[in-house]
This record gives sequence, structure tokens and C-alpha cells, in this order.
Amino acid sequence: MSIIGHLINGETTTEHTRLQDVYNPSTGEVARQVALAPKATVEQAIACAQAAFPAWRNTPVAKRAQVMYRYKTLLEEHADKICELVGMEHGKTAADAKGELTRGIECVEYACGAPELLKGEHSRNVGPGIDSWSEFQALGVVAGITPFNFPMMVPMWMFPMALVCGDTFVLKPSERDPSVTMFIAELLHQAGLPAGVFNVVNGDKEAVDTLLTDPRVAAVSFVGSTPIAEYIYSTATANGKRCQALGGAKNHAIVMPDADLDNAVNSLLGAAFGSSGERCMALSVAVAVGDEVANKLVAGLSSAMQSLKVGAYNDPANDFGPLITAEQRDKVEMYIGSAEQDGATVVVDGRQPDVAGYPNGFYVGGTLIDQVTPAMKAYQEEIFGPVLCVVRVETMEQAMQLINDHEYGNGTCIYTRDGEAARYFSDHILVGMVGINVPLPVPVAYHSFGGWKRSLFGDLHAYGPDAVRFYTKRKTITQRWPSSSVREGVNFSFPS
Amino acid sequence: MSIIGHLINGETTTEHTRLQDVYNPSTGEVARQVALAPKATVEQAIACAQAAFPAWRNTPVAKRAQVMYRYKTLLEEHADKICELVGMEHGKTAADAKGELTRGIECVEYACGAPELLKGEHSRNVGPGIDSWSEFQALGVVAGITPFNFPMMVPMWMFPMALVCGDTFVLKPSERDPSVTMFIAELLHQAGLPAGVFNVVNGDKEAVDTLLTDPRVAAVSFVGSTPIAEYIYSTATANGKRCQALGGAKNHAIVMPDADLDNAVNSLLGAAFGSSGERCMALSVAVAVGDEVANKLVAGLSSAMQSLKVGAYNDPANDFGPLITAEQRDKVEMYIGSAEQDGATVVVDGRQPDVAGYPNGFYVGGTLIDQVTPAMKAYQEEIFGPVLCVVRVETMEQAMQLINDHEYGNGTCIYTRDGEAARYFSDHILVGMVGINVPLPVPVAYHSFGGWKRSLFGDLHAYGPDAVRFYTKRKTITQRWPSSSVREGVNFSFPS
Amino acid sequence: MSIIGHLINGETTTEHTRLQDVYNPSTGEVARQVALAPKATVEQAIACAQAAFPAWRNTPVAKRAQVMYRYKTLLEEHADKICELVGMEHGKTAADAKGELTRGIECVEYACGAPELLKGEHSRNVGPGIDSWSEFQALGVVAGITPFNFPMMVPMWMFPMALVCGDTFVLKPSERDPSVTMFIAELLHQAGLPAGVFNVVNGDKEAVDTLLTDPRVAAVSFVGSTPIAEYIYSTATANGKRCQALGGAKNHAIVMPDADLDNAVNSLLGAAFGSSGERCMALSVAVAVGDEVANKLVAGLSSAMQSLKVGAYNDPANDFGPLITAEQRDKVEMYIGSAEQDGATVVVDGRQPDVAGYPNGFYVGGTLIDQVTPAMKAYQEEIFGPVLCVVRVETMEQAMQLINDHEYGNGTCIYTRDGEAARYFSDHILVGMVGINVPLPVPVAYHSFGGWKRSLFGDLHAYGPDAVRFYTKRKTITQRWPSSSVREGVNFSFPS
Amino acid sequence: MSIIGHLINGETTTEHTRLQDVYNPSTGEVARQVALAPKATVEQAIACAQAAFPAWRNTPVAKRAQVMYRYKTLLEEHADKICELVGMEHGKTAADAKGELTRGIECVEYACGAPELLKGEHSRNVGPGIDSWSEFQALGVVAGITPFNFPMMVPMWMFPMALVCGDTFVLKPSERDPSVTMFIAELLHQAGLPAGVFNVVNGDKEAVDTLLTDPRVAAVSFVGSTPIAEYIYSTATANGKRCQALGGAKNHAIVMPDADLDNAVNSLLGAAFGSSGERCMALSVAVAVGDEVANKLVAGLSSAMQSLKVGAYNDPANDFGPLITAEQRDKVEMYIGSAEQDGATVVVDGRQPDVAGYPNGFYVGGTLIDQVTPAMKAYQEEIFGPVLCVVRVETMEQAMQLINDHEYGNGTCIYTRDGEAARYFSDHILVGMVGINVPLPVPVAYHSFGGWKRSLFGDLHAYGPDAVRFYTKRKTITQRWPSSSVREGVNFSFPS
Repeated sequence: MSIIGHLINGETTTEHTRLQDVYNPSTGEVARQVALAPKATVEQAIACAQAAFPAWRNTPVAKRAQVMYRYKTLLEEHADKICELVGMEHGKTAADAKGELTRGIECVEYACGAPELLKGEHSRNVGPGIDSWSEFQALGVVAGITPFNFPMMVPMWMFPMALVCGDTFVLKPSERDPSVTMFIAELLHQAGLPAGVFNVVNGDKEAVDTLLTDPRVAAVSFVGSTPIAEYIYSTATANGKRCQALGGAKNHAIVMPDADLDNAVNSLLGAAFGSSGERCMALSVAVAVGDEVANKLVAGLSSAMQSLKVGAYNDPANDFGPLITAEQRDKVEMYIGSAEQDGATVVVDGRQPDVAGYPNGFYVGGTLIDQVTPAMKAYQEEIFGPVLCVVRVETMEQAMQLINDHEYGNGTCIYTRDGEAARYFSDHILVGMVGINVPLPVPVAYHSFGGWKRSLFGDLHAYGPDAVRFYTKRKTITQRWPSSSVREGVNFSFPS
Repeated sequence: MSIIGHLINGETTTEHTRLQDVYNPSTGEVARQVALAPKATVEQAIACAQAAFPAWRNTPVAKRAQVMYRYKTLLEEHADKICELVGMEHGKTAADAKGELTRGIECVEYACGAPELLKGEHSRNVGPGIDSWSEFQALGVVAGITPFNFPMMVPMWMFPMALVCGDTFVLKPSERDPSVTMFIAELLHQAGLPAGVFNVVNGDKEAVDTLLTDPRVAAVSFVGSTPIAEYIYSTATANGKRCQALGGAKNHAIVMPDADLDNAVNSLLGAAFGSSGERCMALSVAVAVGDEVANKLVAGLSSAMQSLKVGAYNDPANDFGPLITAEQRDKVEMYIGSAEQDGATVVVDGRQPDVAGYPNGFYVGGTLIDQVTPAMKAYQEEIFGPVLCVVRVETMEQAMQLINDHEYGNGTCIYTRDGEAARYFSDHILVGMVGINVPLPVPVAYHSFGGWKRSLFGDLHAYGPDAVRFYTKRKTITQRWPSSSVREGVNFSFPS
Repeated sequence: MSIIGHLINGETTTEHTRLQDVYNPSTGEVARQVALAPKATVEQAIACAQAAFPAWRNTPVAKRAQVMYRYKTLLEEHADKICELVGMEHGKTAADAKGELTRGIECVEYACGAPELLKGEHSRNVGPGIDSWSEFQALGVVAGITPFNFPMMVPMWMFPMALVCGDTFVLKPSERDPSVTMFIAELLHQAGLPAGVFNVVNGDKEAVDTLLTDPRVAAVSFVGSTPIAEYIYSTATANGKRCQALGGAKNHAIVMPDADLDNAVNSLLGAAFGSSGERCMALSVAVAVGDEVANKLVAGLSSAMQSLKVGAYNDPANDFGPLITAEQRDKVEMYIGSAEQDGATVVVDGRQPDVAGYPNGFYVGGTLIDQVTPAMKAYQEEIFGPVLCVVRVETMEQAMQLINDHEYGNGTCIYTRDGEAARYFSDHILVGMVGINVPLPVPVAYHSFGGWKRSLFGDLHAYGPDAVRFYTKRKTITQRWPSSSVREGVNFSFPS
Repeated sequence: MSIIGHLINGETTTEHTRLQDVYNPSTGEVARQVALAPKATVEQAIACAQAAFPAWRNTPVAKRAQVMYRYKTLLEEHADKICELVGMEHGKTAADAKGELTRGIECVEYACGAPELLKGEHSRNVGPGIDSWSEFQALGVVAGITPFNFPMMVPMWMFPMALVCGDTFVLKPSERDPSVTMFIAELLHQAGLPAGVFNVVNGDKEAVDTLLTDPRVAAVSFVGSTPIAEYIYSTATANGKRCQALGGAKNHAIVMPDADLDNAVNSLLGAAFGSSGERCMALSVAVAVGDEVANKLVAGLSSAMQSLKVGAYNDPANDFGPLITAEQRDKVEMYIGSAEQDGATVVVDGRQPDVAGYPNGFYVGGTLIDQVTPAMKAYQEEIFGPVLCVVRVETMEQAMQLINDHEYGNGTCIYTRDGEAARYFSDHILVGMVGINVPLPVPVAYHSFGGWKRSLFGDLHAYGPDAVRFYTKRKTITQRWPSSSVREGVNFSFPS
């Protein structure tokens, strides 16, 4: 069985403490194994990144950006292979993987603009004859730790910007679906990146802890669940590093009485069930304002869900694929069961779907649960599966209170035609990414991504303008020249 | 004896666990006492700040800025009183206090520009019919913890920007010289700030820990020594807050063979001995490149130091005043002694100066130590006293290596006429604030202040543009409107 | 009779080719006379401004900004006098003059932020060892030519930003109401502006042409009517200057079927009749979509107009005052008559109002004309009087077409609750300043003011960010230092 | 003989009033002919651009930018052909053409960053419940008129930014060397640009005047000589358009006594003679400070010029090629002769060089003239040939005075090691692009290009950040929503 290793200093190695199985979740079979790196291997990656740093930070930013232009072209050329690699280990459909790739490429494009983005601020005459300016200089070695659900896009939230800022990088991707991550790392080297500037180590907690505590690592970017995000943030910062750690979510959509219901139903389907709901921006709670709207919404959704198709990643007829593991499938089914037990109504039940030809795949079908209340476990926790809960309230204020009281504050959305309702909502909701009739308000690559409350730990959001600030440190120079000098002629004779 | 209390919700209170003496360091006498707040009092301040938050964040930024325009005027009108209050508890001369005040007012001025600084980024058509924009919204309650050496300026690095950003504030100033801090807090209310928006609590570790752990505090800004900065940073972040913690320094000036030596000598005097060296930007190490320069520099400095005068804060003839406490005086003398013992040459010895009329003041005179080496304790640690060490090296590279190897990276300076040397230095030195022939390269208020390495923990620097980002969180809104609507006339009849 | 002169180099003079009467339009009496400057006097003002330029541009921007902080305070202290001076020569009420002053002061505040606004862009390593940065340097002498309708605010759109940018200034205000302009010029000098930096000349075409053709004037800002704006723009540019020339307007409000009609009626009243409609942002055309809305709107307006009160500027009970001259009054009455003749319905007729005690004042009362069509002269031209025309259309597209076809494109507004309608409108309307339920969408001072089509000639808008770019020119420096230099030690022996 | 036509709406046509010969200046032979468009053809191009505008401006900016990513790749793939096309009609060597192409591609890269560059400014709560934001919207049809000396780069200064801003474009390139311009226009369509968005018309004054006066053209960018630039600027602005017109130059380098002379000599060679001096940034005057420096400089230059080789564009051994026409060759020789006659010393005489095999090519060899004075015609006017004049002065102030007194202010440079001299120079010199030891201080594509004085007419510089502002107009929206609406529930029943 083939073994997925690490990419260090431009070369592949397979040092490991142990090997871990990598599944094809569509079939439920083990397809290959991934090497989990020991501390020494991670330290070697860090050492290579550190060694590569001086030359890379001295490379003019316009040259660093050239790598990203070529990388964009390569990613586009290899799109089919990339999507296949994602699908076979993650389970998402090709259409969904294509969307992920597009978003990732957009982050690469943003990194192409580094010469503009890295401009510092210059002030002539802050005092008589004194100038001052700020520069944004590279940090050194930075690390990224990324989750299984977007095995190429989330890394691309991080390393393109870090690299064009002049940093060198060690990435620890998810051990669930590492093949695509390794492949895009190879493409990056084909694009002309010097060896050692970007390194990938597969691993588990040992690798993570090495990255969090090694004094040569200057900063850590993390995306994953909130408990781990919290651990990452407190550990990295206790070790003197800067850190941004993005965690979990429970994203609510408010459906107002004046909403365009067809639009709401259609867009909620994709937002709730796309990628089996394994997205930190998945829309998992619909809050209907008034029973009239709620009834129509539930009717519309359950009708539309008739034609939703779950199945293997490589059949284009499927709307979404399996969950990442058998454990995750069981957990999602547990949440559905708990809601049922707590009194909610399972309107459409996706448990144990019949997926012809794939009896061992990790499937759960699209599930709609009505009459969910804030007291239920299925409401309070992130399910990370194809489950949409409907909560019914009487007023918009109640709907907003629900959202503001929840521990997470990643994304949210309101469906309305009314300018005032939308404006009030966007101003007062305690959520970092807000949609107005947009159920997945993922910011475009030239804005930044980040939640509020326990969905993000740190000062600065991911990708976009914030990433420039995160991956650089400010240096401010103040300059005055002695006045008696060559200009007045005193030194006329000096160079002879 | 008068008791200095707290300012909570616009009112003064004196709850305390215990009282601590506040000295006049020029005389060595206890002048008044300060109330150290119990946990409950700090919590009350936080509660008031939280209660004041909704109305304040909803106040248009242009209105919030009006408070700062008035505050600037009030600070200018009360300049003499402010300087007197600083001098009597801190010991710095009026001229020095005036400089501190000017720098503080400049931060207030920068805050006046908040309407410009808080602009978000707007993108029409991120997709067909979809707009997206970012806003920088207030965090909520933020805390500042500030040191004795700039009892008004360092708080003004923090609260003006935090307040105009829409945050409310709890300040815990130094318990050594709290009177001036209380006074400028009163002026802020005279300027029209609503009660509860800005609160001051005096206190010790109990107060600090309350601020660091209370979940209602969203962010903490700290300036002090590195061990405490590290504690603040790791504790605040472990409690999920954002944090910027500025620590200690050991600022080196390289004196190159082509330097304008008169300028170097004159400006080093002020940079090393001003405010008794109790500045995190004090220039405490001169690195002379070549013995010829070193000899001239030491000769020039020791000659100029003949006329340096240490004494009480309120005699304008004095160049600088006492140290903050007897303990600090003893510590500084210890460092001088240790250098001597380690083989350095004490060229000018400021220990136990004769300050007529003030036998009990905490004085140390200007001290110059030559032949200091990196192995010495007096080189490795921050002395925080009027002591200038001279280190001799052969080349500029050696000089830069010294600086880059030191644990601190706050400020540094090079004296040269040569464009190339200056450019190489500013590019490659691992220090956050760099001077070219400027010994105290404190950035002006419209740039930001921050060191590198163990001189600052966090992503963002103090005041200036970084402060805007630190005191706000990004919210990104993505908006699409349903297409069938009033525009096409379908709803023509609705408002009747 | 007192004579209003010029302010040149900080001193008042009254050179003139002839004297022109200045009226109190509320009484219709001549109150004083203004000196119209000959060419030589204007040239003297330019010469003084040029002489003051080198020192002023070398003054650090933070010091230049200090003048504006003090100026803001002085303007606030003298608010009553300023409003009285405006009212007695312009005729606007004190409440209206107060609004004008507030807007002017906001521009002064924006100028206080100059240190931030003038920051250039810095790039380290545009090539190996090469740095490049841009600066925004002062132009030299710039001129402002301003209209009667905002005799203090429009000058303050210009000179505060020009001055903090380092330019020196020659202002030619309106000869109709110059007293207030002279007074705020005096206050500027009280605020500490050096003599010669800001100069005022009163005059007519001779003065204007001197400013447009003198090679020492680098740039011209103008606000007035479109024919003059066109002349100013083509003449100034043919003389090699940069120029921004703001002209006339015909601002339409679309009232949609879903509009909040009470809000529309109330806000249209102020927008149409405030300052007697003598505003380039006055709302002079209401476009009602559908007859139902039109009928309600006309009914609502004519009812509300019962209580509208026209009269002398100094009676606080009046809603608005007289027109600026007898000629302007006659012209406005002519437009009303022509509409009537062309078939429109004069619903409320303000011609020849009875203003007790002021039989000779230049009054026209609030006038509402329904059934106005695009073919009418009263629709096509700017009336600049208290006249609101109602046009009726069937669809929003027709309403937008009207606006897009009109020669002017200054301001516009839509009344609707619908997000989609508002968004479509703001995206596709060919107007520079757009209101959504805001009838007078004058940008705040930290945005910029400017119309489209024949309402503005030039690239850059007035005040706000654009003003920084207009009043400065870009200089880009590219710097590389020879590598063999003092750093490597070759010149070690040189300074001896 | 082949005829070069126009590219209108994606198709080639050859309408013409007359045909003009296009030479191969290396051989002196006519190689093909270019069609000069009649007014009607230009109007057709404008009409096509206008028709293409609505769809193009509505295309999301990120999609518009995709065309530029592909265009960059295509330009790189066709680099050899592009350089050949330039060389055969312009005469510059392949190495020089490669440099031109690189600079052009960098402008395409900058345009790729349009999503970031077009961001507007957003302000929540400019008043209670009122938001305001600025957008930078496309102008419509814009025109470019470009010179022979950079037949691909100068067009690429203009159209990439104009296109990504949403404008459509009509380009009138030089009729001397149009083939390469036509080719890169074809590549742009291969990159996916829709037909009609970019159009090319060849022509003479008739075409130019049509572009300057047609009301559908919103803006004109021009690069050429100063007399024409002045005509373009005054005509375009008199027709109500915005215009930026870049003209001639006379770029001086000051050589200071402390300069690195080897560096100065080497870099001056390329700056003076590269591309036969047919560059608006060519360094045509060296100002030596002190005779000692002057003597060394002249000796060094004349020695180095021994190996300079002029010849046909397609021999890689040549340093530079012929002039563009026989007339230009004669004019350059006239300037050399006039200097000689006026008393200057022709140290190296490049007139009538012997270029084996190309007896009819338009060649002038590298020419060095010493002892040039400001009174000479060869000093006052732009020669645009491979001629370097040396002026001798006694002090740096005299050198700067020369530069500041010259009518042009495009580029300049100082050779020195001294930080103070460089800083004083860059602060006080009246030139838009300043080099410190950089003889051709052409700003990189992410800064902007523009001279001062009579080298540029207009407010905004070419390419870089200024181009964004030039090719867009600001729209400011102010928005308030009526408060009683769907949020409070009043309309609960409406959508049914």
C-alpha cells in the first residue's frame, strides 16, 4: 500500500512514528497510508525553512510574486487531477471540489498583488529635516495547521500570502486527506519556488506541538474545531508567537416574512447540504420569523429535498458525497437522534441512506429537522453533517438574540427585501461574516475571512488584507542626516 | 494623608484591599497613598464600561472624535498642572514632562482623525449583483495596564484610539505615580465623554488578574517589563482575548567612523540620561566601530557629562531627576558595580551624587561605562537608569550581530553619513524602531510604536494605524437583493 | 459707507478699479461696498503667496495642521458672528447658516488629519538593493474662486486642505456677500497662519482672469454655474494649470410606490426650499412613479407648505430668507411663469409673497409645480430658487432615464424601502452623489464632493480624500546606494 | 506591399484617407504601409467601444482581471515575436525591446490586482442610522494616443488599467511602428477580451482630433512631445474631458565629488545611449560638480564609449540601433553641430557612423559633448538621440538650480554616497521622478509615472495607483432606511 510522506526542502521523505490509514470514504475502504512525522522530522522541516529564509526575504517582492502567477496557471491546468485527489480521500463531488479550487486560486491571485499590498507608509518632514517610514517585513518561519474539509483551499488561505510576504512555511495538513495537499505542494515547486521555502509534514499531536513550541516558528495559522483552536492559540501565544486560530461555527439564517422564499429555499439547500455540511460556513440553522413563513419554508425545503442525491464523489449526478469517516457518520446520526428525542420533528430523515453499490461508504442523506429549540444539543453544537435545523421565533429581535447568544459567531444570513431590516441586522449582529440574502457569505479573496466570539482566536482574520498584516511585522525607520556634509562642499577633496 | 482612588462611571471611589504609599522621589518622602482595588471594584468598573458600550458604539464616529478635539484643548490648557503632577510623583523635570505631554497630545490628535481611520473597504459587484464590504467595529470593553515611567503618555497611546473606535475602557495605571493619570481622566470627562465609557482603577496583581480573566474584557494593552509582558500576553490570550504586551529594551547606537561625532555626543546625552534613563527607548549602549571612534566618543561624552545636572524635578536647571524608588536606585547602583567588577571601566560614576537639599531623594547621576562586553550582566539586562555603556567592536557587521543577538529589539540607531550603511542597517537589523542619526526613534503618533523579539508580544503595535486594527474587529458583509421586486413594479399596489 | 477690501500678506487694502454695492437682500438696501481688485492687486496677492511658499512647504505637516486645530476652535467661538455676517449679506436664516458653518468646520477637522493623509507609499527592494517611494508634495500657489451661496463653507472646502498640504492660497470670493469670507480669513490668521500663506482678493472678471492666466498659479478650484465652470476649466487648463470646476445641478428625487411618504414629504421640504433653493444640492425635481404616489405626494407637499414661512434672515421663525438679488428673484418668477405657460400646474405659488415689514426684500415663497415635463424650460434649467417641480412617470426605468438624460449629474435621491431598487439605482444612475432616502446626499467631509456630467469638470472631487491628491503632486524617488562604502571599512580613515 | 489597418470591434479593417510608409530604420527601406483612418472610421471605433461599455462595466472586476492574467501569459509566450516586431519598425535591439516588454507586462500584472485597487471607502454611521460609501466607477470610452519610441509599453501603461476599471478603449498608436501594437491588440483578444472593448485605429491629426472632440470619449491619455501634449491637454479639456498628457524631457544627472565614478560611468552609458536616446527618461545631461570630477567623468565616459556599438536591431552584438527616421537622424546631427558651433567640445562624435552592410540605415553613434552651457540650443531642447552633454558647475546648489530652471521636469538623478545630499536633492528638486544613484528612475509598475513642469499636463500620473483614479470617477452614496418597516413587524402579512 502506498505511503504518503512529507515534503522537506523540496524532497519527499517518509519518516514516521507510525502510519495511519487514509480512507476512500465513498467506498469505506483504506486506500493508502500516511506517515506521521516524529518531532525530529518536524524540526528538520523548520530548520530547512529557517535556512531558506534569508535568501527568500531578500528576493524582491515582485520576483516572489512571479511564483504565484505561474502557480495559478499550474493549478488551472491540473484542476481535474486536483479535484479527483480531493474527492477520493475527502468524498466531495467534483463540482464541489472545483468550487474549493476556485476559491483557493483566488487567494493565489491576491498574493500576486503583493508589491502593492506590502507598501509601507512614508512621511517626509515628521520634524525639520527628519523623515520616517514604516515597512512590513517578513516574520521568518511560519506554520499552518489545516483541516480535512478543505484540504487544498485552507492551505491556500495561508501559504500564498505568507510566501509573497517573504516568510518561509511549514504546513501540517490534515492526515485524513493529505494526497491533494502533497500534490499542490509539488506544483508550487514546479512554479519555481526554491527548495526549503515551503515544507509539508504530515503528523499528529506530536507534530503540532513541535510547531507550537519550537522557538524558530514565528507565527501559527490554524483552522479546525474550537477546542483545538483554543489549545493552539493559548499554546502558541504562551510560546511567544503570534497566532490566529479559526474554530467552529453554527451559522443561522433568518428568514423574514418578506423574504423571496424560492430564493431562500434554493440557496439554503446548497448552503446546508453542500459538501455534506462539512464546512465551517455551512448554514445549519434556519430561523423562521413567524409560523406562516416557517410552514412555507419547511414545505418548500422538504419538497426540494426529494431530489437531493447523496452518493460517491465520482458520480456527477450526486449532489453531495459521504462524510469523512465512519465515526463522523455515527456522530451525525447521533445528533439527529438526540433532536428527535428532545422533541424536534425530523421532517426529512437522511440516516442510513441506500446508496447503491457503496454499502460501506460513510453516508448520511440530507436531513431536515423542524421545531428545534435552543435547549437541544443538536442546536448548541456544531454537527458538521447534512442536517438543517429549523427554529421558529415570533420576531426578528428574537432571531437576532438567538444568534448573538450562541457561542459561535462565524457566518450568518438574513433573507429579506427590506433595506432597513438588512442594515439593522448587519450592524448589530455579533457575527464576523454576514450575508444579506447570501447564505454562505464567505468573503472574496480580496476581503478577509474570520468569525467572532469563539469562532476565531486572534486579532487578524485569514487571507485578504489582514493576512498581509499577520504575516509581516512593522519596522519604523526615522532618519535625519547631519547637515554639514558633501553638499556644502566641505568634503570636496575626500574621494581622491 | 490624601488617598488616590478610582474613577468608575464618572465618579471617584476609594474601595481598597490596602493602601500603598506614593512617594515624592525627589525628596524621598511619602506624599500620599493610593487605594489598591479589590476584585469586586475592578469588576464594577468592567460592568460600567460594558453598560456604557451600546450607546457609545452607536454614537457616530465623528461625534466620538469631537470629545478628542476638546480633550486636546483641555490638555494644552492644563499643561503646567499636568507636568507638576508628573514631576512630583515620578521625578522627571518639567521640560521632560512637557515632552511626554506633547507626545500624548499627538496621540489624541491622531484619534481626532477617526472618521478617516475607520473607513472600511467596499467592493461593488464581487459577483453579478453582489456587493461586499468590510467594517471595523468596536470590540466592547478593553483594558489598559500602564507603567510608571510615562504615567500620562502611555495611557494616551491607548485610550484615545480605543474610545474613538467605539470601545469602552478600563485603565489600571501604575500605582507609583497615579495622580496625573487620575487628573487626565477627569479632563476627559470635562471634554464631554459620557460616564462609564472610561474608567480608572488603581490596583496591584489582583486588579490585573481580574482584567486578564474577566470574560467581559475583549482586549488588553500592556506596557511594562518583559517578564510581566509575557505573563500578561499568555494569560490574556489563554482567556481568549486579544492582547498586545510591550516589554523591556536594551537600545544600542552604532557609532560609525564617518559619524558626525558632535551630533552623536550631544544627542546621546539626552537619549541616555533623559528621564534618568527610565524609558523603554532610552539609548543605553553605544557601540563604537573602531577604537579611534571609541576613544573620541568616550572623551566627548565624559567631557559633556561634566555639566550634566541631576536634582529635584522642580528646579529647571536640572537635566534630569531622581529614580522612581529607593529600590530602583539601589538596583541601578548594583549594575554599575557589577560592570566594574566584571572588568569594565566606569569613566563617569554617578553613584551617590551630592544633591544639595535633597539628601533622601532617590538619585543616581549620569554614568558612563567603557569597555563593556556582551558577557556582562550590565550589558545583558535592562538597567533603567542613567547609565550609558560603551562596547567596542571592529566592524559594522560585529556591531549589528550584537544587536541582533540581544533578546530585546525595541529601538536602535546608527550614526553615519553614508547612505549605504544606513540602508543596510535599517534593512537587516532585527529591531522594530530604527534611527538613522536619531537616537530615540520613537515613531510619531501617525506611525505606530513597537519593538521586535522579546520587546513586544502580539501582532499589532501601539498607537497609530495599528491601534485602529487592534481596537476593532473586522465584519464583512456580502449582499445580494432578490431581483423580482418593487423596481419592476410587481409590488406596485403594496403600500396602499 | 464702509468698504470691504482685500487681505494680502496678512494686511487689509482696498485697491479697486471700481466699487460694487453689497445688499442686505432681506431689506433690499445697499449696506456696504466691495472693492473690485485690479490686475495688479491680484498679482500682488499671488506674489505674496509665492514668497510665503518655501517656508510654508518646509514647515512640518504636523505644525501646519496645528493651525487648523486652533482655527476650528476660533470658528466655534465666533459662530454667532459668522452666521450673522452670512445672513445679512446672503439672506439665509441663522439656523441655515449654522448648518453651513458646521459643514465648513468639518472640512477644517479633516485638514487636521493631514499627517495621516499625506503619507506616501514606500517599497523596499523594488529591485536588489533598490528602494522606491512616492511623496505628495505641495504645488505652490493655488487659487480658489467661490460662489455667493455658501460664502464660508465653499472656501472651507478648499483652503484648509490646500494649506495643510503645504500650498499657499489666493481666494477670490463672491462679491455678493464677501464680509463673512473676510472675517473667517482674519480668524485664520488669529489661529497662527503666517502672513502671505492665505490671501483674499475681491474682484470681478479681471481678477478671475488674472488668476487663470498667471503662470505662478499652479491650480484653480472653482464652484459656480456650469457656463462659468466650463470657462474656468478650459482657460485654466489651456494655461497649463490643473483645475477642478464645479458647476450647476438639477437634482431629482425618485419617489417609489413603496416609499415612506411622510418621510419623503418632510425631507423634500427642507431639500427643496432650504436656503431658498440656492444650493447646488437643492432637490428641485420630484419624480413620482405612478399617479397614485404622485397624487399623494403633491397633496402631502401642498399641505405641508401651508406652514412654510419666508422672511428676513434674522427672524428665527422663518424657514428661509430672500434670494440674493432682485435679478435672481425676477428670474425665479420668470421660470414659474414659463412652466405655467408651458402647461404645468402651479399648485402652490410663491411669487410676490407678502413679507410684512420688508416690502423691498428679494422674496419668493415656496412654490410647487405639478405636471412638469422634460420639454419645459423650467425642467431643463437650474432655477436656483424655492421651486419644486413634480414630474410623473410610470416606471422606475423611466424615472432613471430622465435623470441620466439630463445635462447635470450632481445629486439625486430615491425614496424606497426596497434593497434591490436602491442598489440598482445607485449602481446605474449617472450622478456623482446619490441618496437612498436622503434627499441632500452631500458627502461628509471625510468623503469627497463632486457631480458627474456637466456638473463637474476635472478629475478630482472637492474636499475629502480627493482634495489631498488635487492639492499635491506626486514625486517618486528611486534609490540605490553604491555598495563599496563605509560599511565594509574602506573609508575607515576618512573622518580624521 | 502589406497594409496595416485598424482593429475595430475585434475585426481588422483598412479604411484610410491615405497610406503612409512604414520603414525599417535599420536598412532605411520601406517595409509596409499603414492606413490612416478617416474621421468616420474613428467614430465607428468610438461607437463600438460605447456599445461594448454597458456589458463590460457590469462584468465583475475579478472577471475583467482574469483577462489580464491570461494576457500576461500570452505576452510572455510571444516575447520573441513581439521584440522582433518592435525592432524591425523601431530599430531597437532585442535586448532593449525585451526590457520594454518586461515593463509593459508589469503594468498588466498591476492591472491583475484590480479587485484590490478598485475598493471604495465605506463609513457606517456618518450620522445616526446613515451610512455612506464611495465607489470608483468606470468612465465609459477612453482614448490613448501613444508615441513611436515605446510602441507596446506605453499603450500598456494605459489600456490594462483602463480595461480592468471597466472602461472601453480606443487606441491611436504611432504610425511609425504600428505592427507590434496591432499584434499585442490581437493577443488581448486571444486572452478573452470581448469584441469592441478594445479598439485600435491608426491615423494622423484627423484621427487625433476626432478623439479629442467626440463627446462620447470621456478621457484621453497621451504620451509624446511637449508641444503636442499641450495641444492635446487644452483641446481635450476644452471639450470637457479629463486628460493626462505627458510631454518631453531633459533629464540631468548630478555627479557629486563623492560619487562612485565607476558606477556613474557605467550606468550613464546605458541611460544616455540605450534605445539611441529615444526615451523620455533618457539621461541627456551630466552635471559635474567641480572640475576634478568633470575631468574624470569625461575621461571615463569617452574611454567606455570606445566599445559602444551602433547597428541593426537584429544583431545582438549591437548596443543600440538606428534612429526612427532619416529626419530624426538629421535633427540629432544638427544639434551636435550647433553645440560645436556654440563652443562646446565634441569629445566623442557619433555623426555618420560606419555601419557595415547598412549604408542607408538612420544611424548616429554615441556622442559625448563637454563644456555645454545653459545658453546653448543643444542644452535647452530635447535632442532625442544618443547624445550626452556634460555641464560643469562649482556647487551642488548650482547644479540643482540648473535643473529647477529648465522647462522640463521629468526625471533626474544624483550620484553621491552622502545621505544628506541625496535627501536635500530629492526634497527640493522640481522633478517628478528622482534617482539616487539610479540614472533612469522609471517608477516600477506599482508606483506611478509622471514628470513635473512642462513634462506633464494634468493632475494624475500614468499607470500605478494614479491610473486607477484617472480611469474611474467617484460616486458617493449616502443611505438611510425608513425606520418603520418589516423589522418591527408592521408588514408581516405583505408577501402573501
